[in-house]
Amino acid sequence: MAYKEFTIEGRNAVTEAFRAGKTIDKLYILDGCQDGPVLTIRKEADKQDTIVKYVAKERLDQLSETGKHQGVIAVAAAYEYASVEDILRRAREKQEPPFLILLDNIEDPHNLGAIIRTANLAGAHGVIIPKNRAVGLTAVVARTSAGALNYTPVAKVTNLARTIEGLKKEGLWFVCADMEGTSMYRLDLKGPIGLVIGSEGEGVGRLVKEKCDLSAAIPMKGNIDSLNASVAAGILAYEIVRQRLG
Amino acid sequence: MAYKEFTIEGRNAVTEAFRAGKTIDKLYILDGCQDGPVLTIRKEADKQDTIVKYVAKERLDQLSETGKHQGVIAVAAAYEYASVEDILRRAREKQEPPFLILLDNIEDPHNLGAIIRTANLAGAHGVIIPKNRAVGLTAVVARTSAGALNYTPVAKVTNLARTIEGLKKEGLWFVCADMEGTSMYRLDLKGPIGLVIGSEGEGVGRLVKEKCDLSAAIPMKGNIDSLNASVAAGILAYEIVRQRLG
Repeated sequence: MAYKEFTIEGRNAVTEAFRAGKTIDKLYILDGCQDGPVLTIRKEADKQDTIVKYVAKERLDQLSETGKHQGVIAVAAAYEYASVEDILRRAREKQEPPFLILLDNIEDPHNLGAIIRTANLAGAHGVIIPKNRAVGLTAVVARTSAGALNYTPVAKVTNLARTIEGLKKEGLWFVCADMEGTSMYRLDLKGPIGLVIGSEGEGVGRLVKEKCDLSAAIPMKGNIDSLNASVAAGILAYEIVRQRLG
Repeated sequence: MAYKEFTIEGRNAVTEAFRAGKTIDKLYILDGCQDGPVLTIRKEADKQDTIVKYVAKERLDQLSETGKHQGVIAVAAAYEYASVEDILRRAREKQEPPFLILLDNIEDPHNLGAIIRTANLAGAHGVIIPKNRAVGLTAVVARTSAGALNYTPVAKVTNLARTIEGLKKEGLWFVCADMEGTSMYRLDLKGPIGLVIGSEGEGVGRLVKEKCDLSAAIPMKGNIDSLNASVAAGILAYEIVRQRLG
């Protein structure tokens, strides 16, 4: 899949894109712009939980590729996000217990790409990322995923904690990466599972962590604080692989 | 440790740096420059196995920070490389069987930094990199190592295959990351060990692979070819950690 992030500019084009169900990652609106067409676009954005940013004219001009933005620029991904249901369906089709990787606000696109790559090779059925703050499926992510983005579905959800709650009803249980947790080698990680990885700086957020059934620590012997987020995700994902094989 | 890569420019400064035993990563010489002082520098560089590149004047001017390079620019690291013996001594001091990570031509500085970070936390006693082609300890490596470069010694050797031979005499044995190898879960990875990781594109080179005792594969279920090199290194290093703990 040739991947490209692109901008959709101007009121009509943006309105059309929303109506066609296109995945819009971000919507930029000129600060103070409140006329009818812009309010209509804003409503569509809210329906789809798109991140909306009000910015100065200079910023819009900078983002614009056509020079004709009329006060609205949408940033869209050529890549289409999957739904959580798509991911579960994949597990059912393969007749495997679901194995999901959930990312709580990974901000570095190289890490996100590497994790999608790992998810593919570890046999995870999909990756779930939150809508806010975290990085989306940008061109860098697609490139560092080394093609995995073509095979491993990525879903984007509004509220990760709520998604976890819903998935628990489907029989999944959740293990969160946590330096203070139990050594991953001492946990039972078989069965339908969601592995939750936190952001580079702060780890898994409190609200998300509270929803998790287990906290898994990677044993650490060294002098520094933490592993790179994509390396930690790889080590934990492969502990799940090992236990599933065993 | 504040880390910075820096240039040493001009004939006297570069000659002094070599004589003082400074670690020079690369030496740039003006194409066709063959006078006495430059030949002396070239001889020093050869003694220390420094990479020498003959370049056009435009390139030197570009590299120069002082504007006064006189046809020679050395690139040095503020970071000092360790020797292989330093690394073995560390293992002895900790009364642990040596655990080394050897990198066969990792080219991406982010991967090298992440691997040094993993080496530190997995309790490896040091990292060995080859002099040629591979990336050295640049500022990007120092930064992505998240401080691990201050604690985990990195040695730079001329010939990785020969270093492996020497270390075998010290009782180490070597396992090489290889997709065609035996599943890492089925190998015995305890005892004094060197883990050999290949370059991003080509894996471990033939000459180095021939020196290894075992080939370890990370089981892969997906559609794409390979994991990110630093993720693969992390997964393999932690399989060693797991077996050592068990």
